[in-house]
Amino acid sequence: MAESTNVDIQRWRGDGLQPTEADAVAMEEPLEIRVRGRGIAVTMRTPGHDKELVAGFLRTEGLIERRSNVIEIAHCTEGEAAQLENTMNVFLAPDVEIDYGKLTRHFFASSSCGLCGKASIEGVHQHFPPVEINLKVDASMVAALPDKLREAQPTFDVTGGLHGAGIFSTEGKLIVSREDIGRHNAVDKVIGHAFLNEIDLALCILLVSGRASFEIMQKALAARIPIVAAVSAPSSLAVEFAVKSGQTLAGFVRGKTMNIYAGGQRIR
Amino acid sequence: MAESTNVDIQRWRGDGLQPTEADAVAMEEPLEIRVRGRGIAVTMRTPGHDKELVAGFLRTEGLIERRSNVIEIAHCTEGEAAQLENTMNVFLAPDVEIDYGKLTRHFFASSSCGLCGKASIEGVHQHFPPVEINLKVDASMVAALPDKLREAQPTFDVTGGLHGAGIFSTEGKLIVSREDIGRHNAVDKVIGHAFLNEIDLALCILLVSGRASFEIMQKALAARIPIVAAVSAPSSLAVEFAVKSGQTLAGFVRGKTMNIYAGGQRIR
Repeated sequence: MAESTNVDIQRWRGDGLQPTEADAVAMEEPLEIRVRGRGIAVTMRTPGHDKELVAGFLRTEGLIERRSNVIEIAHCTEGEAAQLENTMNVFLAPDVEIDYGKLTRHFFASSSCGLCGKASIEGVHQHFPPVEINLKVDASMVAALPDKLREAQPTFDVTGGLHGAGIFSTEGKLIVSREDIGRHNAVDKVIGHAFLNEIDLALCILLVSGRASFEIMQKALAARIPIVAAVSAPSSLAVEFAVKSGQTLAGFVRGKTMNIYAGGQRIR
Repeated sequence: MAESTNVDIQRWRGDGLQPTEADAVAMEEPLEIRVRGRGIAVTMRTPGHDKELVAGFLRTEGLIERRSNVIEIAHCTEGEAAQLENTMNVFLAPDVEIDYGKLTRHFFASSSCGLCGKASIEGVHQHFPPVEINLKVDASMVAALPDKLREAQPTFDVTGGLHGAGIFSTEGKLIVSREDIGRHNAVDKVIGHAFLNEIDLALCILLVSGRASFEIMQKALAARIPIVAAVSAPSSLAVEFAVKSGQTLAGFVRGKTMNIYAGGQRIR
């Protein structure tokens, strides 16, 4: 499926409605993820790179750890056409045990203090410990990443409707970029790409085109990414998460300027 | 709780890292919603107006229909401090029947064609039929709504990290506005406000500060709002949903210009 499609619109420019014309909008369709025949999640996503999306989702939810856990991720082959494109079957190695309950608990409420940001962070750390890697990157290189991501985002230019995510080397080389109407999906896609291609993310930077939330930081930690850069603002819990997880977090990354919210020792 | 908090940051301005200073970020904390003692959902949200958030969530999920369905929505009173602020108990009238399964099915996959955008729309229509109300609003009034919303969004100005939603009358008068790190939460808060105060939304406009997705259109339809305006782009499924649901959808609403994606008969 394409990442965008044309719809009929009427433009208003202050002097009445203009004749109907075609305009591109970003695609949004549901995707069901089935593991061993059991539906475990439905997400609204932009079609394309579905295999990567599913791999990244399973990786960041902690259901799979290494490439050999996955035998195959493939579109459904039984049913009607629309259904096939929106259902992905995951075939896991026989020795992989799935804790289906973990999917609904989502790392929440696993501390004795009950449901709070602190407990949510501790819940994540039970599955994904903090990162400790010692590396340094150039501040000017990090600040310049958004321009590189934008160059690699053709659909955003057309529709203005997609979030982008990119994985970069510590020298600022783009390894993979993906777009999606959901920011978490874009992140799952790039992480899934790295997972399926066995790219070690411990020496990589994740860039997101929008804001950085708890969920984005959690996914980065699950993938062992030490540095996260966001074009827009981080939330309070994203900052707290980064500090406690040993991650570097930069926000408002905009070419000539940025703010460092955590892990400044990795920025020189 | 406050909607923003201060964290220590270091700014980089092209000539080295500057000394640590305090900067405001938007608050993000988990909220658990409990109905009759049973946890039904956890959402990451910006604290504040939690009662409205919960009411709007229950309304747009189709669990409650009228004010009298709700006896009380209140913060938990047993447990530790952090937990109390992040847990909301819902006490419903005894005659309200809850279909807990509906919460996990989420309107998806309820058509014979399986999981696809078309089926998702039909699934929603089984619970919330299309809107048919006949009204007309001025294009120039709709185009000017974002400026009014921005004036009412103090936290965004400070943190740059929040989504906004506003309910307006058909004359462009702001009825309520709310902010949240999650766009769906901001929408739930304004809809919940209207629900708790028994404001009829059939003659109102919903404005969102970002993009319009399937989920936003679904929530608007559940609340019987006929007109949705978005500052940014709609997705393909948002447009298809609006067309099939009798809703008016305007996107890229920016003062002097906007695009009409559906229901242009309500714009004069």
